[in-house]
Amino acid sequence: MKKTQVALAALALVASSAVLADVTMYGNIDAGYFSLSETGAKTGVDSGAQSGFAGAGGTAPNFWGLKGTEDLGDGLKANFNLEGQFSSSTGQGDNSDNGQGASMALAPSGQLFGRAANVGLSGDFGTVTLGQQIDPGFLALASVDPRGVKMSFSALLAWFPNAGVSGGLVQGIFDSGMVSYTTPTTSGFTAQVGASRPATYNGDSANTSSRANNMKSGRISFTQGALSLSAGMTDSYNAAGLNNMTATVVGGGYNLGELTLKGFYVKYDNRINSTKVTQYGFGGNYDLGNGISMDAAYYDTKQDVDSNNKSQMAVVGIEKALSKRTALYAHVATMSTGTAADATTSLMLAGNGAGHGPGIGQDARAYGIGIRHSF
Amino acid sequence: MKKTQVALAALALVASSAVLADVTMYGNIDAGYFSLSETGAKTGVDSGAQSGFAGAGGTAPNFWGLKGTEDLGDGLKANFNLEGQFSSSTGQGDNSDNGQGASMALAPSGQLFGRAANVGLSGDFGTVTLGQQIDPGFLALASVDPRGVKMSFSALLAWFPNAGVSGGLVQGIFDSGMVSYTTPTTSGFTAQVGASRPATYNGDSANTSSRANNMKSGRISFTQGALSLSAGMTDSYNAAGLNNMTATVVGGGYNLGELTLKGFYVKYDNRINSTKVTQYGFGGNYDLGNGISMDAAYYDTKQDVDSNNKSQMAVVGIEKALSKRTALYAHVATMSTGTAADATTSLMLAGNGAGHGPGIGQDARAYGIGIRHSF
Amino acid sequence: MKKTQVALAALALVASSAVLADVTMYGNIDAGYFSLSETGAKTGVDSGAQSGFAGAGGTAPNFWGLKGTEDLGDGLKANFNLEGQFSSSTGQGDNSDNGQGASMALAPSGQLFGRAANVGLSGDFGTVTLGQQIDPGFLALASVDPRGVKMSFSALLAWFPNAGVSGGLVQGIFDSGMVSYTTPTTSGFTAQVGASRPATYNGDSANTSSRANNMKSGRISFTQGALSLSAGMTDSYNAAGLNNMTATVVGGGYNLGELTLKGFYVKYDNRINSTKVTQYGFGGNYDLGNGISMDAAYYDTKQDVDSNNKSQMAVVGIEKALSKRTALYAHVATMSTGTAADATTSLMLAGNGAGHGPGIGQDARAYGIGIRHSF
Repeated sequence: MKKTQVALAALALVASSAVLADVTMYGNIDAGYFSLSETGAKTGVDSGAQSGFAGAGGTAPNFWGLKGTEDLGDGLKANFNLEGQFSSSTGQGDNSDNGQGASMALAPSGQLFGRAANVGLSGDFGTVTLGQQIDPGFLALASVDPRGVKMSFSALLAWFPNAGVSGGLVQGIFDSGMVSYTTPTTSGFTAQVGASRPATYNGDSANTSSRANNMKSGRISFTQGALSLSAGMTDSYNAAGLNNMTATVVGGGYNLGELTLKGFYVKYDNRINSTKVTQYGFGGNYDLGNGISMDAAYYDTKQDVDSNNKSQMAVVGIEKALSKRTALYAHVATMSTGTAADATTSLMLAGNGAGHGPGIGQDARAYGIGIRHSF
Repeated sequence: MKKTQVALAALALVASSAVLADVTMYGNIDAGYFSLSETGAKTGVDSGAQSGFAGAGGTAPNFWGLKGTEDLGDGLKANFNLEGQFSSSTGQGDNSDNGQGASMALAPSGQLFGRAANVGLSGDFGTVTLGQQIDPGFLALASVDPRGVKMSFSALLAWFPNAGVSGGLVQGIFDSGMVSYTTPTTSGFTAQVGASRPATYNGDSANTSSRANNMKSGRISFTQGALSLSAGMTDSYNAAGLNNMTATVVGGGYNLGELTLKGFYVKYDNRINSTKVTQYGFGGNYDLGNGISMDAAYYDTKQDVDSNNKSQMAVVGIEKALSKRTALYAHVATMSTGTAADATTSLMLAGNGAGHGPGIGQDARAYGIGIRHSF
Repeated sequence: MKKTQVALAALALVASSAVLADVTMYGNIDAGYFSLSETGAKTGVDSGAQSGFAGAGGTAPNFWGLKGTEDLGDGLKANFNLEGQFSSSTGQGDNSDNGQGASMALAPSGQLFGRAANVGLSGDFGTVTLGQQIDPGFLALASVDPRGVKMSFSALLAWFPNAGVSGGLVQGIFDSGMVSYTTPTTSGFTAQVGASRPATYNGDSANTSSRANNMKSGRISFTQGALSLSAGMTDSYNAAGLNNMTATVVGGGYNLGELTLKGFYVKYDNRINSTKVTQYGFGGNYDLGNGISMDAAYYDTKQDVDSNNKSQMAVVGIEKALSKRTALYAHVATMSTGTAADATTSLMLAGNGAGHGPGIGQDARAYGIGIRHSF
């Protein structure tokens, strides 16, 4: 995600420098191979193995974007960001061929700039951002998940099916029609709140409630020395506006030099289905030197209504950085499930039971290898 | 719409300067909130209010683009332009979530570069442009509409439903498969003519006429001192090639220093439905200093077959420019309708009666606030 | 396809030069007009003529892209490429309005970067590329087709319907989920091999074979002095993984100064339909000076099951280069067909019999004119 500031260099050369200094083009490509084998056929008819090109990215998502900042004077700045996602397997904008399951959540079909399409102002008062943007609550999860919401084998794979969809939009990961405010960082504290009404409320149409598709989201983080703490919440109403889904996350990290430890707890309260899913996870990342690092994490996920709807997953990954922008990676994960584990509790693959991913209640092992390059 | 010439700076630095000097990346993001309330339920079952994020832009549309010019010598230049539209609410390429109704017209689904995808040559003889491009007749309207075909509360909202669609394409605003010629400006006069045959005429297929989806469009403008005059016409055949829709506009403007006045008359002759819609509008823009400007406009629109199919709309807007590229805005409009006013005569929201917008024959009030940033 | 290295100039100006030197923005726009008339109604009900805007490009396809290279030290480099196609008639990303028939093959709907979405490493060992990329076998055809797989009247129009589609993806021209390896050029020899498993193999789903949608492709070329030789093969399994289509091409070229001659033979073995189509073609390109060049080619194409399923096509083209990046062109072609010639043997227009193109068994003549500009 290092940015390619295509025009910064122009500053010293031409008169209208403000015009030239503002567009940063950037992106990321992650491509590789994954393989999954189910290790026990407990209740379903599914069995066997699956494998293929990891077009959605084994670690980071595939995206490209434009962004810029304009200095308005007196410390005030205008900012914009356009960012879209694609599959490194097919080049499709919607990643629907994703072997890792979560891609549909991250760049729905037709959303050219499905990750970001926003504009705002920043200054001493903080930052106000209007438009399609990353969910504040999801940002809290990203900061405390030991796997950093990687595209494979991470807390992302539970957040998506439990909090990530409302009314056809992908509220909860990337929020549409949102206005958010982020505070400046004061004494180590940073907070962000956002609210969205992406679809038109029409008093006389099928949208029977002014809350239809609305959402609220927020996060707060604290950093002091080696310690970091985060909490977040996102709350989405469905298309009818009658019920909502709430995701709440708390967690933290501690840096011990080469070793960084992280842990979190998240609760998904789905008032539409009257179910609750809870998850905790912990793990760490170790810098081995020479550009090599390892990470390991453990996740425990369970639903409240059916005690067999649960999973435990352990994952180990290794990366070799070839530069700041390019890395090779490999990771392997094993998942043990209850006999009723479904898409909401299976972290291995979100598409569980319908296409990709192990069948309902299936134990599974999977691995992936690949390359990641940012520009 | 100020352009970010990402590579101009390179000119002095490297040998192959021509290669570097040609791509200009530019765009615009307009995001805000709108609210509409119907003020009288005359004949329909509709009532109530609607509000939400103005993803299509309250004033300017949301777009991004690439363009460039190559000097071929002897005054000849090659030009290209690629430009696409998106929603600042969702990042979608087709803006179908637009609260303002007109967005579907301006960037149909799937048209990555739905606003411009053209190439051409320019020189002393003028400019020839081939491919997807803005309709010449619509350019005439844009120059004389006191609201400058803004995305909300402007003459755009009548042009779209009356002239903007033919055969599934959005002929009339952005023309597909067009070849156009623009004269040089001589003694204040500029003219442009264009013709398009975007879809294949197939003598043996369902396209029963060689005129299917064809269109012609033109404009002429005259500027001298404070005075500017424009006239334009666009003529589109439907998919069967049997009938056409013609839009004809005349108008002008006069600059009195801080105050600029504009007015126009447009006639939409729909030979497919055998209806005519006429509209006149006038108004002005006043520069209050300190980057603040106000505009006010009045529009009268009526159909010929049903005398109750009509509307009058008044709108007032204010803008505060934070820089040449960034502005905050607010506008408020009130519309009084006949009891049969439909989408063709309602300027407030084009989606009238089907989704967004007031119901048939509904009076309405609406306001919008937002921020606009160009790069 | 000359590249606009938008940031190269920044090298000397800022500290983190590596960040700035890497994004090259480039593209091509080709727009013009085509006209086709059927010259004999042999067996079908079709007759008549068709014409329109050549939105897919008369010579080169319309595309835009980003690419870059990062120096990793010790001769190792990381490379990426994102490239998408569009119609110059409508700006659509999928070119489905193409009058030339082959466009759907070259940029399927929804594939934002349908031409390239890949990342890889290169060095003394050669180049490894992962992701959406051009088919190696098709590259062999492109190098020996006298028309250089132009969008009109070239060997492309037989490759597409015979080798270009498998399982809904466009394997065979642009390959999804591919990993390819290209050797360094040694003693004039270059070789490339690639394999793809773009869709997930799911042992328990409707994909009944692990070969579903899989493909292999390769090419080898030899250049010495004026002589160049190429051979290539692509082999694609269908969605069921039960049968495959193989395309094999051999050919060469010889440069005689102003004149370059080329010829090739290709065999399409379709084990799904149990048919074989063979084609040979030859022709040349002559540089007339002053930026003017002419090309002429002859193609003979026939199927093995029905001896009346065949065609012969002759084409002559002329180009006037206005610069290295801009050219005007015109070409005219005549095709004589057997009474059962269908889309697999008609080189004139691939959409033969269903929409665009002459009817089954139709002789036809066609011409096109246009302008091509790269940036």
